[in-house]
Amino acid sequence: MEQTVWFENGAVCLVDQTLLPHEHRVVRCVTCEEVAYAIRSMQVRGAPAIGVAAAYGIALAAHGAERGGAGRAATAVREAGELLAAARPTAVNLGWAVRRMMGAMARLAESGDPAGGLLREAEALAAADRAANEEIGRLGASMIAPGERILTYCHTGGLATAGFGTAFGMLRAAHEAGKGISVVACETRPVLQGARLTAWELMHYGIPSTLITDNAAGALMAQGLIDRVVLGADRIAANGDVANKVGTYTLAVLARAHGLPFVVAAPTSTVDLATPDGGSIPIEERDASEVTQIAGRRIAPDGVTARNPAFDVTPGRLVDAIVTEAGIARAPYADSLRELAGEGGRA
Amino acid sequence: MEQTVWFENGAVCLVDQTLLPHEHRVVRCVTCEEVAYAIRSMQVRGAPAIGVAAAYGIALAAHGAERGGAGRAATAVREAGELLAAARPTAVNLGWAVRRMMGAMARLAESGDPAGGLLREAEALAAADRAANEEIGRLGASMIAPGERILTYCHTGGLATAGFGTAFGMLRAAHEAGKGISVVACETRPVLQGARLTAWELMHYGIPSTLITDNAAGALMAQGLIDRVVLGADRIAANGDVANKVGTYTLAVLARAHGLPFVVAAPTSTVDLATPDGGSIPIEERDASEVTQIAGRRIAPDGVTARNPAFDVTPGRLVDAIVTEAGIARAPYADSLRELAGEGGRA
Repeated sequence: MEQTVWFENGAVCLVDQTLLPHEHRVVRCVTCEEVAYAIRSMQVRGAPAIGVAAAYGIALAAHGAERGGAGRAATAVREAGELLAAARPTAVNLGWAVRRMMGAMARLAESGDPAGGLLREAEALAAADRAANEEIGRLGASMIAPGERILTYCHTGGLATAGFGTAFGMLRAAHEAGKGISVVACETRPVLQGARLTAWELMHYGIPSTLITDNAAGALMAQGLIDRVVLGADRIAANGDVANKVGTYTLAVLARAHGLPFVVAAPTSTVDLATPDGGSIPIEERDASEVTQIAGRRIAPDGVTARNPAFDVTPGRLVDAIVTEAGIARAPYADSLRELAGEGGRA
Repeated sequence: MEQTVWFENGAVCLVDQTLLPHEHRVVRCVTCEEVAYAIRSMQVRGAPAIGVAAAYGIALAAHGAERGGAGRAATAVREAGELLAAARPTAVNLGWAVRRMMGAMARLAESGDPAGGLLREAEALAAADRAANEEIGRLGASMIAPGERILTYCHTGGLATAGFGTAFGMLRAAHEAGKGISVVACETRPVLQGARLTAWELMHYGIPSTLITDNAAGALMAQGLIDRVVLGADRIAANGDVANKVGTYTLAVLARAHGLPFVVAAPTSTVDLATPDGGSIPIEERDASEVTQIAGRRIAPDGVTARNPAFDVTPGRLVDAIVTEAGIARAPYADSLRELAGEGGRA
């Protein structure tokens, strides 16, 4: 899998995820406004990937302001950070990446080359995300027994991250370890990340897989065709409540009703110890046209009222394990997450 | 709402439900093979409506054979019955309607005009379905409290029946009784009956409504925004297990997890006392292209493997009530369904 987001010739480049798998187009953003648009419009998506995109966006802002001296660069970076952090409200990686870049700017302000230093910081952040993905994959794969039939949701592969993938990284590592797993991918309405991206990456890596509509998951569980649910997260509260793509909560309720392990995989940058519980996580409501249209074709009558919450919250009591690069957290999450992601941990 | 299926000038006419709401086209079937195709391709769909279409299809076969005398008509009717009963496997109304028409043919064989008699029988069957719908609506609406926010699934309105609708008839009757209800319609992938048909009928009758993707139902329940789930059925086994559009089972699990009443509405012709339980109901697996394409646009990568079970089975233990035109059945269903739909009942 190639890179998803990178910096090249004064531009933040990204593979347009809204067009895959039918069209492979690279978007070149030459202003941080363009990066913010790419995040809002989901040309780049996936909590870790939008964090990396925001970091590069801040480096880009400094790059554009470098002829104005350190003072101008500091202002441009602060404005870029505010713009990018607000691009999407739910995934915490955006704010995390912006804060990290702001910290770097504070250290670099007196250096002769803040733009160069910020670019190196963004590269380091992307590299750290790739390394975290691989560790999540390795740790998470250890939970998976040979021959498991694993249901996954939305898209958590290389495109959603800077590299290996989170929940997808677990699947990939288990597959590469010869565990003989098979994967059921839910299509994930409304934006169809599962049908478009996960199905594509599963085929790319040769992992035996089946695509279903989201509403068939319960029937497959009832028939004993699923052994485990593995998916990602956009923000994990201090108590283990998980905000992730809308529909995640339904899968958690189904998994519990069928006695199946429900496993969340995410880097510690997705854990937000400052958010006490899921009720405090802002849930993005996206445009109704994502529901009433598919691939530009209208599927509902004109004038219909539609709701389009992009995420939902799964209470920690329904989550059996949270796999991070720093270790596998289990209930009580208030303790385990603080240990892995708190001041004593990596983040 | 106009008629969905009718007989006119030697043809079975039906409103093509695959094209609604964007295009209103009437399909004229002049052979029973064309009627069977219309059922298989879901130009006509909804358990009661396909029963009515099959009845008209048999009348059509007799009509086509009438110059061959009673013997030729009897053969044509038998062959048409076999063809039509096999068009789709899950909805029991198809077999029920065919058996009813066969019984009429046996009585009419010696009459001078079996084709005319069969047409009158099909008209009577359609009229009985309309009357049953209205009674289901009336009985079911009595369960609904003022101001309820009701979630429904797939499409059970006038187009799915010969008239008023089953679960939709409950919503319509409650609305017309001034109960001030509002309805959340799930889009119902893959064929989007909720987005295309239910949303359209809800707007047509002025019922306040919101369209959501299927996977948002759990989140809305968790937020306390749903008071009741009401939907239809394609076959109800003797023990109360319900086969209905895939995704129904997931909603039943969610409703139980949130303490919400889960109500099934269907005519007694959908109750199949000869099927002991849900495990004995054949579940139609439809073409994978319904999952991998939407409105003719491919949404998944070429070569992907997809599963497309059209229905699932909800165990009777998750069903709080089954509303039929003969009364409201509650657990234990083995007794209540036999009483309403058995020999002592209407069917």
